[in-house]
Amino acid sequence: MTYEECIQACMACMEECNRCYDACLQEENVQMMAACIRLDRECADMCAFAAKAMQANSPFAAQICGLCAEICQACGDECAKHEHDHCQRCADVCYQCAQACRKMAA
Amino acid sequence: MTYEECIQACMACMEECNRCYDACLQEENVQMMAACIRLDRECADMCAFAAKAMQANSPFAAQICGLCAEICQACGDECAKHEHDHCQRCADVCYQCAQACRKMAA
Amino acid sequence: MTYEECIQACMACMEECNRCYDACLQEENVQMMAACIRLDRECADMCAFAAKAMQANSPFAAQICGLCAEICQACGDECAKHEHDHCQRCADVCYQCAQACRKMAA
Amino acid sequence: MTYEECIQACMACMEECNRCYDACLQEENVQMMAACIRLDRECADMCAFAAKAMQANSPFAAQICGLCAEICQACGDECAKHEHDHCQRCADVCYQCAQACRKMAA
Repeated sequence: MTYEECIQACMACMEECNRCYDACLQEENVQMMAACIRLDRECADMCAFAAKAMQANSPFAAQICGLCAEICQACGDECAKHEHDHCQRCADVCYQCAQACRKMAA
Repeated sequence: MTYEECIQACMACMEECNRCYDACLQEENVQMMAACIRLDRECADMCAFAAKAMQANSPFAAQICGLCAEICQACGDECAKHEHDHCQRCADVCYQCAQACRKMAA
Repeated sequence: MTYEECIQACMACMEECNRCYDACLQEENVQMMAACIRLDRECADMCAFAAKAMQANSPFAAQICGLCAEICQACGDECAKHEHDHCQRCADVCYQCAQACRKMAA
Repeated sequence: MTYEECIQACMACMEECNRCYDACLQEENVQMMAACIRLDRECADMCAFAAKAMQANSPFAAQICGLCAEICQACGDECAKHEHDHCQRCADVCYQCAQACRKMAA
């Protein structure tokens, strides 16, 4: 796992989470998506934060990636519960990012 | 209007918007709050961005505050439509921040 | 110009700006790079903000891209003054992003 | 330690770090301040992230505060080395925020 691969995973995850966030807010049953909306925002913002840390060569990059892995995992677990395409797609990308960030943190 | 007053207005607005965002996600009728949730996030993040720009003496502080004023106004207008205490409180703080940012941008 | 192309331009610009920021902080003559460091941070953060706005389908995406274009232009102009490879690379990517954001804002 | 106290500590720390960042970039000996500039940015951004997490009632608030405490400690340790008023002031506020965040994380 290189910095660059992990940055790309974070960027991809940020994108899917923000798209899923937007799509959830437009669903008919927004209520059911409340946890997903909340985690999508948090995960998107965490991924942007982790990408920045790696790009800027932060001395805390490994620890930041460790936290990012946990949030990606939680967001993936929530998204995986919903059948919407945007949630399923988001879950996949979250799990990939969680794995990349775990390796980076190790 | 000093930088410090406008920073404080942005910090207060960031806080109320994030609290309103959280409260909206816990409302029974989340659907009705979708626009509010979206604008709360956007306004909170814009206010954090504007506060940082002023604190760090950015050459773009005035322009950033100009955009922040518009987003605060829109968020305040949306929040003002809802009778929840958190929305009414958020609308007030958004309007105060919009005014502070407009003065700073001028 | 689609949202996706502009998001990619913002992501690429965020990355080069954060890398240039890190490299400038490691240069022998940091003093000479002070304006570059400042603009690199600002531009990287603005690009992340603009990418998020487009990804999340923000009603303010066009205006945010308009401001992003100005900051990218300023950062590119500063980077272009320095002969370091990281600055020249960053200038190129900033100008590309400025152009993409201007089209998106129009 | 309540959320509100810790949010205020994070907000105050974000402000001093961004001010110290700006002041360091204007020092005659920027070179000597490179580590300080880098940590000021990181700490300011981490504090903004932690404040947001607490305000929005994030399920990860404790873990985010735990990481924030480490970054505040490191930034305070770096700032404490420098005699500039802005660095000494920043070190104080960083240590206060580190303490508040450690309690919140516990």
